[in-house]
Amino acid sequence: LTARLQGFGTTIFTEMTRLAIQFGAVNLGQGFPNFDGPDFIKEAAIAAIRAGANQYCRMSGLPELNRAIAAHQQHFYELTYDPDSEVTVYSGATEAICATLQALCDTGDEVVLFEPFYDSYRASVTMAGAVPKVVTLHAPDFAYRPEELEAAITPKTRAILLNTPHNPTGKVFSRTELEHIASLCQRFDLIAITDEVYEHLVYEGSHVPLATLPGMRERTVLISSSGKTFSFTGWKVGHTCAPPALTAAIRCAHQFVTFCTATPFQHALARAFVADDAFFTGLIAEYRARRDRLCNGLRELGFGVLAPAGTYFVMTDIRPLGYADDVEFCRMLPEQVGVAAIPPSSFYERPAYGRHLVRWAFCKTDDVLDEGLRRLQKLP
Amino acid sequence: LTARLQGFGTTIFTEMTRLAIQFGAVNLGQGFPNFDGPDFIKEAAIAAIRAGANQYCRMSGLPELNRAIAAHQQHFYELTYDPDSEVTVYSGATEAICATLQALCDTGDEVVLFEPFYDSYRASVTMAGAVPKVVTLHAPDFAYRPEELEAAITPKTRAILLNTPHNPTGKVFSRTELEHIASLCQRFDLIAITDEVYEHLVYEGSHVPLATLPGMRERTVLISSSGKTFSFTGWKVGHTCAPPALTAAIRCAHQFVTFCTATPFQHALARAFVADDAFFTGLIAEYRARRDRLCNGLRELGFGVLAPAGTYFVMTDIRPLGYADDVEFCRMLPEQVGVAAIPPSSFYERPAYGRHLVRWAFCKTDDVLDEGLRRLQKLP
Ligand SMILES: CSCCC(=O)C(=O)O
Ligand SMILES: CSCCC(=O)C(=O)O
Repeated sequence: LTARLQGFGTTIFTEMTRLAIQFGAVNLGQGFPNFDGPDFIKEAAIAAIRAGANQYCRMSGLPELNRAIAAHQQHFYELTYDPDSEVTVYSGATEAICATLQALCDTGDEVVLFEPFYDSYRASVTMAGAVPKVVTLHAPDFAYRPEELEAAITPKTRAILLNTPHNPTGKVFSRTELEHIASLCQRFDLIAITDEVYEHLVYEGSHVPLATLPGMRERTVLISSSGKTFSFTGWKVGHTCAPPALTAAIRCAHQFVTFCTATPFQHALARAFVADDAFFTGLIAEYRARRDRLCNGLRELGFGVLAPAGTYFVMTDIRPLGYADDVEFCRMLPEQVGVAAIPPSSFYERPAYGRHLVRWAFCKTDDVLDEGLRRLQKLP
Repeated sequence: LTARLQGFGTTIFTEMTRLAIQFGAVNLGQGFPNFDGPDFIKEAAIAAIRAGANQYCRMSGLPELNRAIAAHQQHFYELTYDPDSEVTVYSGATEAICATLQALCDTGDEVVLFEPFYDSYRASVTMAGAVPKVVTLHAPDFAYRPEELEAAITPKTRAILLNTPHNPTGKVFSRTELEHIASLCQRFDLIAITDEVYEHLVYEGSHVPLATLPGMRERTVLISSSGKTFSFTGWKVGHTCAPPALTAAIRCAHQFVTFCTATPFQHALARAFVADDAFFTGLIAEYRARRDRLCNGLRELGFGVLAPAGTYFVMTDIRPLGYADDVEFCRMLPEQVGVAAIPPSSFYERPAYGRHLVRWAFCKTDDVLDEGLRRLQKLP
């Protein structure tokens, strides 16, 4: 293993999913639903396979999917992107992040990340030869301190990577915060990379793409994915929207990372992105009910629930129940209680900030949420 | 675009596929069949989608697929790999190459490549901060000179990347060549990375995985893919077989490049890899007929045909027809003749070596091959 990947080990998702399977635990760990998205999307994938859409697709994405993604951005955010020169499809948002950083970061460049972060950010920055500069979202409300963000910016800063709605905290960045970040990007001529994969899972307030703020569209790489929105995380289709020069650079990396993405699923998701509004409002209503079910249950059990405004994760404080170490807690849980969750300290550069927190996923049917809560009554 | 990717531009596949579509050309360029693999594999993918196998898979691959790949290696090559700790699944062989180099190459390390090469090799080496050292396969027989390979090895050499059966030349490395390469790997303690995606497409002699040579299994990362063998290039599923320590390192990179691969296609290919021998012998017979059909036709047209022992590509010398520049020739072809091919000079660090060559793909039905040959009679 190379120096740049030393210390990364196996992601916590792999470790916790393995324990969940080993002990037959109710899996509230890694973020994937225990149900699939709409049948019409599945049937579109099946029709594409039957129709013979099984060979390499265009490197930048199936034209119909690029157009559907552009139409989606227009419809929801009034953001206009050219499907051919500004939209690109990847094998998941994780690949989009990897290719974006490979394309835009030179050795020694710095990239500002907010902790806690999805763990691929730090690794992708490092694989690109760049250096992560980490700004903390402080529990319990996960606000960042403006002066800490400003202090993280140096002459070497190339980009700020922003994830909103935010995994693992469920935070949705406010317009005031976004305006502050936008002003810094413009003052210091930084690129913004925005991971918006939970864009449609917002229960309080609303999701504002950073690219909609004045002056930001031309310096923002907007990353999203269909896996989370349409409940097909296993299809691994993500995308970026970015102005032509940034897009050209990122495609240069993308073509050597995976070259292109599974063709039949691109056909299917081209239909999904132009689903009618009822689908999206229905989705939010369903997820809000799941969120409330799990949050209420965890609160009754005595956890300190930090109710999320978005995503399908909820963070809890485990100290009220007498626990102090998230990793110990989450390693004990599958075997002793039959439930799996994620210890957030691995999402911090300074793990101490996350030691008292545990993340639970509520992208699960009611029976699974209820069974998880029932088992948690046996907590030692 | 970062310094390390300067000069890479858009891959020749994208450029030539675009011209092919624009001018309605018979596409003998990029390597994908114009037919699909067996129906039973498609039906297995459809069954997986219907059965709800649409969420994230295990990061290292669907257990059934890892087992099927191990069984395949055992059956064909008597190579024994442990499915859990030695086999890993990726979003195509291109991702496997990218992750392998990210995991194993430190900044400044050198990697030996044979030119002409599939263009992602050089880019992936460069993205990993390493330096490609290129050894030429000299036309017309594409042998390398042993002293040139030996001279390419320095104290900084980390790995030799070998592609056999070889794209774009169709060369199948001989046992004598493999023994020489193996002896150098052992003498200088190098890792061998072998791209064997055309392993089942061999018409003269036979494919010998470098890992089967004495002392090589423990230092070889064997890369292959199902797209080429089973004619589903658009499903994007590749794999590596490598000893546990190398596998652990590569998975560390893989989990941050794409994390995991489309679940339904892994279910389908788990069935494919354990297809009976008749499938593989039938495949070779069909492809041999296609090879002969295209080679004979090109020969009759006056091309200097360098008949391939493997892969589904044939290289031709264009000088007998009065042409001297492969790029000019291939840019002219779609518009003026209605056929697309690939100019190999972009696969050379020293493009001059490939200027007189053009690569044609014969993974096409007879009607397409015949129509391509018919159109080529109009060559100006
Ligand atoms: C590949 S894991 C992606 C992120 C996620 O689903 C999680 O945080 O659980
Ligand atoms: C993604 S292109 C892979 C290689 C290939 O098919 C070709 O050389 O044409």
